[in-house]
Amino acid sequence: MALLSVLTPVLAVVLCLVIGFMLVRSRETATTSATQGNYVSPETDFRPWVDQDLRDDTEITAKEDEDGDWAESNEEEDLLHVPYSPPHYPEETMLERSKDLYTLMNQRRSVRFISPEPVPREVIDNVIRTAGTAPSGAHTEPWTFVVVSDPETKHQIRRIVEEEEEVNYRQRMGNKWVNDLAKLRTNWIKEYLDVAPYLVLVFKQTYGILPNGKKRTHYYNEISVSISCGILLAALQNVGLVTVTTTPLNCGPQLRLLLKRPANEKLLMLLPVGYPASDATVPDLKRKPLDDIVVHI
Amino acid sequence: MALLSVLTPVLAVVLCLVIGFMLVRSRETATTSATQGNYVSPETDFRPWVDQDLRDDTEITAKEDEDGDWAESNEEEDLLHVPYSPPHYPEETMLERSKDLYTLMNQRRSVRFISPEPVPREVIDNVIRTAGTAPSGAHTEPWTFVVVSDPETKHQIRRIVEEEEEVNYRQRMGNKWVNDLAKLRTNWIKEYLDVAPYLVLVFKQTYGILPNGKKRTHYYNEISVSISCGILLAALQNVGLVTVTTTPLNCGPQLRLLLKRPANEKLLMLLPVGYPASDATVPDLKRKPLDDIVVHI
Repeated sequence: MALLSVLTPVLAVVLCLVIGFMLVRSRETATTSATQGNYVSPETDFRPWVDQDLRDDTEITAKEDEDGDWAESNEEEDLLHVPYSPPHYPEETMLERSKDLYTLMNQRRSVRFISPEPVPREVIDNVIRTAGTAPSGAHTEPWTFVVVSDPETKHQIRRIVEEEEEVNYRQRMGNKWVNDLAKLRTNWIKEYLDVAPYLVLVFKQTYGILPNGKKRTHYYNEISVSISCGILLAALQNVGLVTVTTTPLNCGPQLRLLLKRPANEKLLMLLPVGYPASDATVPDLKRKPLDDIVVHI
Repeated sequence: MALLSVLTPVLAVVLCLVIGFMLVRSRETATTSATQGNYVSPETDFRPWVDQDLRDDTEITAKEDEDGDWAESNEEEDLLHVPYSPPHYPEETMLERSKDLYTLMNQRRSVRFISPEPVPREVIDNVIRTAGTAPSGAHTEPWTFVVVSDPETKHQIRRIVEEEEEVNYRQRMGNKWVNDLAKLRTNWIKEYLDVAPYLVLVFKQTYGILPNGKKRTHYYNEISVSISCGILLAALQNVGLVTVTTTPLNCGPQLRLLLKRPANEKLLMLLPVGYPASDATVPDLKRKPLDDIVVHI
């Protein structure tokens, strides 16, 4: 009994350690499955062929309401179907058209030297109309194009973007080496943000508000808006305007507030748009040949 | 002393509880910051204006190597710059060209009724060449277009996609209501996967392998590949071909294995491509007017 009395504190300590260990372990397990992003809802059957590590972003976001086939929203199922018969070109015409568009688009380059020369607003509107023809998950059209031509707003945008870029570059330099400050500095100076006649800030709408006031998640909103931006780039190239595709780091919330966009919108891209400067240059890059990007089966 | 001896186990228990509690708390804090996806590296200064809830996906992935300005990779900084002077159209021509492309693209629709009529492969190759002109983060060109025309492979793809779609639909029905089985069934039957002359499976390369064997993360790979798909849709429309943008749920790993794609590639989209069937119909959808998608400042 005396021995037991002496051992009691030891036993208590051991018991506590075991309980504590179990607690920590259970938290760890929960953390691991959550941070890997492979959330599997309880309703989902376990399917052993799924390689958990290989799950795509598109799969992570899969919810019961979601549909892999974008156009088949519930609303759309109830819509009247109408005949669709676009032009059927002869093969020779198809070939010619396909070559012509390739030639045009292959001349596209990201250009950082933009002329201040004004650009007709109607052209910009048509370019954005064209971007708005993109497909989107459940036809939500989850995009807002904020076109900034006001010099003061452009300058505020520049200030916000450059401040963040400087922080990014200084961090990078701290981690690596400081060899050419002047050269790096040119990377966070974005003159084109003042100079370009238009800044197009592309926002993705992460959710919408239904008539009953409920939120409706816009699945695939980032993919949809990016597709729309691809069409926008084609439309710009088609009229001889240039841009550079940028995704300003950490500036989204500040720019959203500056431009008074609602909370469901998040900045995806910032595109300065204009004619190229007369002395514009681009890095002498090559594109991958067709065989490196296509596989025929 | 006797009192102390009696209290010892109690003290030990309290001490253990305190230690256990602190351990759990510290884990919890780590978990919270990790699962919110707002990982802030120790080098990052705390910047109070950042609304944590509003951080974008693009910001979550921010790493020291990353750059908001896509074209300014380290390699590119060292590249020779060459003059760039694309055509400068008169304003009237610009306006006309912008209208023409809008008219063309506004006729684009997602079409699920595809004709089995063969399509010249050279046209498909040019369309993919065109998609390959898209910009990409640090010019990584992180896309692989797998073009499947082999009937057996197409059928295997159909089997995989339909199996998954059926699981998805049955789950949805289980959670909501079962009103029209026949109608729902049409949603997971994807005849076009057999019928379309080509299935284009678009893979994003999440990382690349450097000459020294190290992995190189492809930042913004999903946005880049989606932009490329936008250009691909424009190129298809330009030659009179149709497709429907699909992101098959949970099929990525199976399809990747079927098509023998490496581990760094993940399926982003599956596009059946061909002429529209002669009796093709589309839901009578409208697009948002310009004023709903653009904001001028």
